[in-house]
Amino acid sequence: MITVLADGHVTSPRGWQAAVAACGIKYAHRDDLALVVSDVPATAAAVFTTNAVKAAPVLYDMALMAQGGELRAVVINAGNANACTGTDGDAAAVAMARAVETALGLPMNSVFVMSTGTIGVPMPVEKIVRGIDEAARRLSPDHGPAAARAIMTTDTRPKHCAVTVALPDGHTITIGGMAKGAGMIHPNMATMLAVVTTDAAVPRAVLDTAMRQVLEVSFNSITIDGDTSTNDTLLVMANGMSGAPPITDLTSSAGTAFLAGLTAVCQYLAHAIVRDGEGATRFVTITVRGARSHAEAKQAAMAIARSPLVKTALFGADPNWGRVLCAIGYSGATVDPNRVVLYFGGMRVLENGLPLPFDERAAHTLLDVPEVIIEADLKLGEGEATVWTCDFSYDYVRINAEYRT
Amino acid sequence: MITVLADGHVTSPRGWQAAVAACGIKYAHRDDLALVVSDVPATAAAVFTTNAVKAAPVLYDMALMAQGGELRAVVINAGNANACTGTDGDAAAVAMARAVETALGLPMNSVFVMSTGTIGVPMPVEKIVRGIDEAARRLSPDHGPAAARAIMTTDTRPKHCAVTVALPDGHTITIGGMAKGAGMIHPNMATMLAVVTTDAAVPRAVLDTAMRQVLEVSFNSITIDGDTSTNDTLLVMANGMSGAPPITDLTSSAGTAFLAGLTAVCQYLAHAIVRDGEGATRFVTITVRGARSHAEAKQAAMAIARSPLVKTALFGADPNWGRVLCAIGYSGATVDPNRVVLYFGGMRVLENGLPLPFDERAAHTLLDVPEVIIEADLKLGEGEATVWTCDFSYDYVRINAEYRT
Repeated sequence: MITVLADGHVTSPRGWQAAVAACGIKYAHRDDLALVVSDVPATAAAVFTTNAVKAAPVLYDMALMAQGGELRAVVINAGNANACTGTDGDAAAVAMARAVETALGLPMNSVFVMSTGTIGVPMPVEKIVRGIDEAARRLSPDHGPAAARAIMTTDTRPKHCAVTVALPDGHTITIGGMAKGAGMIHPNMATMLAVVTTDAAVPRAVLDTAMRQVLEVSFNSITIDGDTSTNDTLLVMANGMSGAPPITDLTSSAGTAFLAGLTAVCQYLAHAIVRDGEGATRFVTITVRGARSHAEAKQAAMAIARSPLVKTALFGADPNWGRVLCAIGYSGATVDPNRVVLYFGGMRVLENGLPLPFDERAAHTLLDVPEVIIEADLKLGEGEATVWTCDFSYDYVRINAEYRT
Repeated sequence: MITVLADGHVTSPRGWQAAVAACGIKYAHRDDLALVVSDVPATAAAVFTTNAVKAAPVLYDMALMAQGGELRAVVINAGNANACTGTDGDAAAVAMARAVETALGLPMNSVFVMSTGTIGVPMPVEKIVRGIDEAARRLSPDHGPAAARAIMTTDTRPKHCAVTVALPDGHTITIGGMAKGAGMIHPNMATMLAVVTTDAAVPRAVLDTAMRQVLEVSFNSITIDGDTSTNDTLLVMANGMSGAPPITDLTSSAGTAFLAGLTAVCQYLAHAIVRDGEGATRFVTITVRGARSHAEAKQAAMAIARSPLVKTALFGADPNWGRVLCAIGYSGATVDPNRVVLYFGGMRVLENGLPLPFDERAAHTLLDVPEVIIEADLKLGEGEATVWTCDFSYDYVRINAEYRT
């Protein structure tokens, strides 16, 4: 059984502590550095951006994970992405890891590094190392929420949660997480950073499989603007401090429960990123069913979710089903226009590819809400997929036209 | 030699006439129907939207062109796309063609049909047929500009031009064109309608080859919002009334001259569509060179041109080269981040993947102009491509959030 904790966070699981510091990397008068530390070595799994242009910390972490060791901590800074910063940037990523290892007396190569912010600006390494030293003295299980705030960039609110999972054998494990996102959000890991912690004991290979399985239905099913960034990283760490026996089989009852809990945490964080999408005024759930395959259903759903014309219509609560049908049409998914059925907010607006007579005002009212649901049935097969996105507002333009000024 | 005519239009070539009418399809007090007629049978070539959801007129025209006959006229209405209108829509497209054939005493299957406007609204066939009858009585070589105005939807200005081509043998041919576009513009024929006329004599197969060759470097190299519509059509018609001998070989000096003239007309119209992109405040030329192939260069250039983050940064004249590099990174084109060179308005801002120290203010000033040029050199090969787009402004959102209201 899964219980969502009120105000749960990345240090809700046993044996996890966090700390923050204000380094003055880009923002004044706010924390911009976060440390998340496990009291004991934790197994870890991570996925990274698919962008050919990868930030220095991503390259550092990829090498780190390739060594297959266990982790003790992750250090995250906001305000500077440490991307397109050349060899100095590579050195800065290493310096951040070393600084944490030194300050906390951790072994070499036990610290994961994440950066988010502006691309192409040299890292103020001294400031960051100073912040790491400060943070290292303030570790506490209570600083999870502060950590979630410290990693924000254009985010307007922190994103964190935690659930407890009651295992069949009576043990209880806790899974917590935090994330940041906003712009440049797109499947295959966009500008999103996410850290998930648990006190479950999960061998690395099992943790990796679980993460990839959950990734597909959470972070890889959201889009805000179709851009894919240089820094995206999802890190999942398990330190086993719950005392529950190791989860070695995801098909076992314990494994299934763990997967359900991990899915709950990752979907909550993915949705929180969309809800906080730059300029977003509506949270939009798009389900395509009846496609020839799951892949084609997702193709069609993502085409709808990415269409600026659909997203601006949603901002205006305009029941413009034509743009939705149009997006399905160019998605590449197999579609017979004469079979498609479309629903806006549960109201059927199109059947057999033909618009049904519906009250424009009523439809407008149905769409003029914070949570919009669009459903399409292609009537061709069993393929189904759900993705989440937000609308495209004046503020999206304002935020991104003014991002650095 | 190619000469651009001042205020040239679709009836500038010899033997072409146009007429317009106000049918009241959607807009009040404006012409919304255009006829373009050749005095004699014309060879024709056309390409259509790649969207799986095709409007009734597109399906009608595809069948018409498959018959391989010659055309005498094209009829175009604005305000209703006649898409997702079922069998009534199919009948409406046929009715439009028949009405023109009857009114002008033309043979069956000699009239091409185009519609643009809102999707999924029944066609007011009677109004349109009445308009066709009126227009048929007003044909004149002077009504080309009026025709370009009549086919506008969210366009803010008419788009038409013409060039004369002095052939080596002393003859002169004229090529004219008009187009409408605005939103839903994307390669592979988006919501764009374009009609190109010429008094050159060009066998159908040659005309078709010429059109496809020119298409790639004109209409298929522009994007506004990445959406691909249900109605896009490019029609090229040649009636031979210039008296110049038929162009049977595109590699001949006459063929080369014709191709150059056709390219000039199609590029002018394609650029005019981008300049009039919904809410556009800047015309952006993006060139990617040094790619492994032309295809990869175009992939990278289009990724830059489509990125909402790049487009909003351009609106703000923000020299945010990081977003450009990022788009190249996820474009799918082969890229070595450590080799990339980027230029904004001719100013080198990135070399070997590293930002060069440049004056933000100066760069901002360079970008704060109506015509922006972005260049990238991937330093990997000989592949080069240029595409055109516009920025993403508040007005894009306003226009599309309010489109139907």
